[in-house]
Amino acid sequence: MARVRPLSGYPEWTPSERVVESAVLDSLRHTFRLHGFGEIETRAVETVERLAGKSEAAKEIYTLTRLNAEVDADARLGLHFDLTVPFARYVEEFQNDLAFPFKRFQIQKVWRGERPQEGRYREFYQADIDIVGRQSLPAHLDVEVAVVMARALAALPLPGVAMRVNNRHLVEGFYRGVGISDIAGALRSVDKLDKIGPDGVRAELVEQGVPDTAADAVLELARISAPDASFVAAVEDLWATTTTIAEVADAQAELRDGLTQLVALVEGVNAAVPGTAVADLRIARGLDYYTGSVYETFLEGHEDLGSICSGGRYDSLVAGGGFPGVGMSIGVSRLVSRMLGAGLVSASRAVPTVVLVAVTDEDTRGASNAIADQLRARGIATEVAPSAAKFGKQIQHADRRGIPYVWFPDSGEVKDIRSGDQVPAQPETWAPPADDLYPRIVRHDG
Amino acid sequence: MARVRPLSGYPEWTPSERVVESAVLDSLRHTFRLHGFGEIETRAVETVERLAGKSEAAKEIYTLTRLNAEVDADARLGLHFDLTVPFARYVEEFQNDLAFPFKRFQIQKVWRGERPQEGRYREFYQADIDIVGRQSLPAHLDVEVAVVMARALAALPLPGVAMRVNNRHLVEGFYRGVGISDIAGALRSVDKLDKIGPDGVRAELVEQGVPDTAADAVLELARISAPDASFVAAVEDLWATTTTIAEVADAQAELRDGLTQLVALVEGVNAAVPGTAVADLRIARGLDYYTGSVYETFLEGHEDLGSICSGGRYDSLVAGGGFPGVGMSIGVSRLVSRMLGAGLVSASRAVPTVVLVAVTDEDTRGASNAIADQLRARGIATEVAPSAAKFGKQIQHADRRGIPYVWFPDSGEVKDIRSGDQVPAQPETWAPPADDLYPRIVRHDG
Repeated sequence: MARVRPLSGYPEWTPSERVVESAVLDSLRHTFRLHGFGEIETRAVETVERLAGKSEAAKEIYTLTRLNAEVDADARLGLHFDLTVPFARYVEEFQNDLAFPFKRFQIQKVWRGERPQEGRYREFYQADIDIVGRQSLPAHLDVEVAVVMARALAALPLPGVAMRVNNRHLVEGFYRGVGISDIAGALRSVDKLDKIGPDGVRAELVEQGVPDTAADAVLELARISAPDASFVAAVEDLWATTTTIAEVADAQAELRDGLTQLVALVEGVNAAVPGTAVADLRIARGLDYYTGSVYETFLEGHEDLGSICSGGRYDSLVAGGGFPGVGMSIGVSRLVSRMLGAGLVSASRAVPTVVLVAVTDEDTRGASNAIADQLRARGIATEVAPSAAKFGKQIQHADRRGIPYVWFPDSGEVKDIRSGDQVPAQPETWAPPADDLYPRIVRHDG
Repeated sequence: MARVRPLSGYPEWTPSERVVESAVLDSLRHTFRLHGFGEIETRAVETVERLAGKSEAAKEIYTLTRLNAEVDADARLGLHFDLTVPFARYVEEFQNDLAFPFKRFQIQKVWRGERPQEGRYREFYQADIDIVGRQSLPAHLDVEVAVVMARALAALPLPGVAMRVNNRHLVEGFYRGVGISDIAGALRSVDKLDKIGPDGVRAELVEQGVPDTAADAVLELARISAPDASFVAAVEDLWATTTTIAEVADAQAELRDGLTQLVALVEGVNAAVPGTAVADLRIARGLDYYTGSVYETFLEGHEDLGSICSGGRYDSLVAGGGFPGVGMSIGVSRLVSRMLGAGLVSASRAVPTVVLVAVTDEDTRGASNAIADQLRARGIATEVAPSAAKFGKQIQHADRRGIPYVWFPDSGEVKDIRSGDQVPAQPETWAPPADDLYPRIVRHDG
């Protein structure tokens, strides 16, 4: 038989790997629900018009055509490339069915027509949470969203995570205070810090007409980073020495607003999950979308993955305005792929089954079925041997499938085929150790 | 704001409706796992070449094109229209990672380019189970698959279901015994019984060269239906009076094989879930694919929905042969849509949240957060009020979101806002009644 070849960019898991992915998704759902986030699911398709609104993503959109049908340009549909565009449309469409502030989580596949040679996925899971208000949304919800995500990540078998956070008000107030008028231009340059270095950024800023001292101040600000409120003093010192404009009141108010929000965020997240949040004043993501808190999250020892969980505060989810919100998104498939690929975790077994009930001969299959049903009635996943082969063969079958226990109806005994221990047992009372009841993620240290 | 319009054929649920769908999917997963079926998930796309192999579905296939990109006819990909084509490819691709007989369930969206005016969905959930062997697969697994599905359906809040089953060996043995040579042609005609009636079927059979008495026998066989083994006597009586060929040994052996399998199936399913299975000798589905047991399932009082759960035994999952299997598939979205649309069920609430902790003033939000965390640590989904409004407003917020309890940190009391009952409570010990812990499906009778 010709070997079927995987499609580049479309990851698929073996049953054992899927146990890990599935446990990760269940864990995320559990944390989100504990904090009052309800699940929604949107269709996979949106109109191309709506998808292409975020113009930079246009080339990544997959459009749909019925095989052998004429392309109907007016009714073109495409697959969503994130969960924000469909969520915005959903909120607009279902606004009368929702109570605001509306908290939702959404875990679905998304599709992007990336070049496969860049090692990116073309189909992958995202897990998003957002809180969206009507007209206004209190600032403390920026902390709540980050706390929920920090807890969701802490509940997974991962190395430590570092959530690097910043605040647009802080940065913009500061930039205005040092006399920069093209705030967006300066942000765009600072966003290139990793790529072109401080000298490159300075050159761009100067080219935009930013005075030398202000450019220095901008670079100095980007160097400030702290896991606690100590960044405030550093910012205030810098501000005191570099503010040059006459009318600083408005800029200062915006700066202070940002400082207050960022302190609350760093302290709030670290109170919930110690050692997670770091104020990092160079973070400048989603420049045309985020307007307050911004978040990026890195996996310790796996920083090359890039941010595994990002997001921010935005003024309005929908184009017409009036739906301010804050949200974060985990790139689940990339994360799971790394967890598996780097050998950080594996599944305790590939099958849900705890017990294989052996079959002595085909005439007594009914008795084996009855034992299996007694175990199932008590929540113990059970299979019956597919054939009445020699017991050695049946044990081998359990072993190949990864089933830990074999039950012998004749002798009324159950064998742990890993240890070889065999003990008398009643189907009305026997239970496996808690660790064996469900397949689970096993963490590999070191 | 311009009203966003739903897309015809792409159903979406409100948060409350999604609670129902999600509970249905969780219930199915639980039943499948209890019986040893592990979950796999396949990518949404397959090559068009593979999808179009099942030629009758070709027109329903959605192909993908990157926006603004040239269509590359050699590398065309399409969305899967069922879970069988991707499962077959998966088994072929991962065969060395799988232990056979391999039991899997798969719950995913599928896409079909149906005409929307026919009221069909273009995107919907299917839930499939299959058992696939290597080279051979024992007949009792036909019973197992049907039992698992009967139990999965019985665990849902549905009216009764009728699983109508037949066996291709029985029918083919019988047809050969009455002297029919074009078995496939005769089956195709009988399959139209609902559409063209007995006279239409008889006319087609006669046109195929089937003698009058044989045509009568075929129609007589299709009339046989029983919820137990009594159909055997009816078939044997008919056989005794109508067999006309000289050499009946082979045909009779095939008939008996089919009778034995069908008795085991009807009795096995009815032993597990009484009153579910009916032998119905007119069922003739998947003519070019199924080779043994065939299943269709109807919802009592909602027969107009068509079969909600179908499947059968097949000789080989993959084109090269050698992977015999048996499987069934539930059309989940259509089923959930009917459950909701006909008012059979609703969600007990739209949100996961059990408790809203009130906030007395913004300075003491931390105290409210601490109570919420104590409740969450004990598995009770909790939110904190978004603003320190008057308590009346906070209760109103809980009510609008569907949250049943409000916790007052100052007085240390919790109020059931449905009954108005308010009692003293400790966050370390208080628990809601079991019915309130999670949103659940409420069944509406009558």
